[in-house]
Amino acid sequence: MNYCSHCGAPVHYAIPDGDNRERHICTACDTIHYLNPKIVAGCIPVWEDKLLLCRRAIEPRHGLWTLPAGFMEQGETLSDAARRETREEANAEVELDELHTVITLPHVSHVQMLFRARLTAPVFSPGVETLETQLFREEEIPWDELAFETMRRTLRHFFADRRRGLFQLHVEDIPQAPPKGG
Amino acid sequence: MNYCSHCGAPVHYAIPDGDNRERHICTACDTIHYLNPKIVAGCIPVWEDKLLLCRRAIEPRHGLWTLPAGFMEQGETLSDAARRETREEANAEVELDELHTVITLPHVSHVQMLFRARLTAPVFSPGVETLETQLFREEEIPWDELAFETMRRTLRHFFADRRRGLFQLHVEDIPQAPPKGG
Repeated sequence: MNYCSHCGAPVHYAIPDGDNRERHICTACDTIHYLNPKIVAGCIPVWEDKLLLCRRAIEPRHGLWTLPAGFMEQGETLSDAARRETREEANAEVELDELHTVITLPHVSHVQMLFRARLTAPVFSPGVETLETQLFREEEIPWDELAFETMRRTLRHFFADRRRGLFQLHVEDIPQAPPKGG
Repeated sequence: MNYCSHCGAPVHYAIPDGDNRERHICTACDTIHYLNPKIVAGCIPVWEDKLLLCRRAIEPRHGLWTLPAGFMEQGETLSDAARRETREEANAEVELDELHTVITLPHVSHVQMLFRARLTAPVFSPGVETLETQLFREEEIPWDELAFETMRRTLRHFFADRRRGLFQLHVEDIPQAPPKGG
């Protein structure tokens, strides 16, 4: 951030009065510009004993598999965001169940929040950001071709919970970038 | 938003190629400026059968009572944010338990996420944004002087869950501004 989005003057980086961390502050109009973590909302779409994954048509991780998820937008609810992302990436409609994972990635300031969900019909197809959509049984999950560590953890928790017959919320952090390919 | 925070040129409001909603786009360098909901992180600090509330020394809702909570910062985890806010507003240390409420307020683009928590000692005092800190039993909660509807709902769920001996996560939305005083 170099300029004030309100008045266009240069910003400087300093601790505002009464605050305890550096912010971008306008040198002309004194507006303080806060930056905050973003929410990535999505779901685990289930049909019978299978899950729907999407193969990414965009960077990062082009060509790898993920659950439908993306940045929550202004003015929408968390559950609307999860349903919208599923519609945009997989042309699929879901009924949301419970929230399943809340995973913070502090190094990129993202909080990923995924619900368990049920496809309302076995109807899906790639959206513009997706190369391919496919239902997978647990033993068919392409573990070595998953796009993100958050998705790997979410799927692991899902299958472990399903085996013991008790789903629960998993709140955790991934404190730094996972190793390459991880 | 009027100017590009990257290059200082004016922005216009339009739908970028491949997107489906209007964004602020720079007329000079084409940077797209996204706005996203903010996370309000906090907790319900418990000591024996009592909860710790803070009376606000700042607007909005100056003078009214709230649970310790505030905006999550870049680079921190959700649980670090909840503990930090408790330290800043009430000079109190907590051990976090499970996530208790996730409440979206789409009209202000906030997602409030509060954990249940235990005070590590009955030690607390007002931080700079707080007039007063006090432990309350259920029958002492100042229901008519709570600062926010989100806090009212969080407390109601907490006491209802405690009565039936089973805490669970509550994910819900408050679709529009509550009535005045609500």
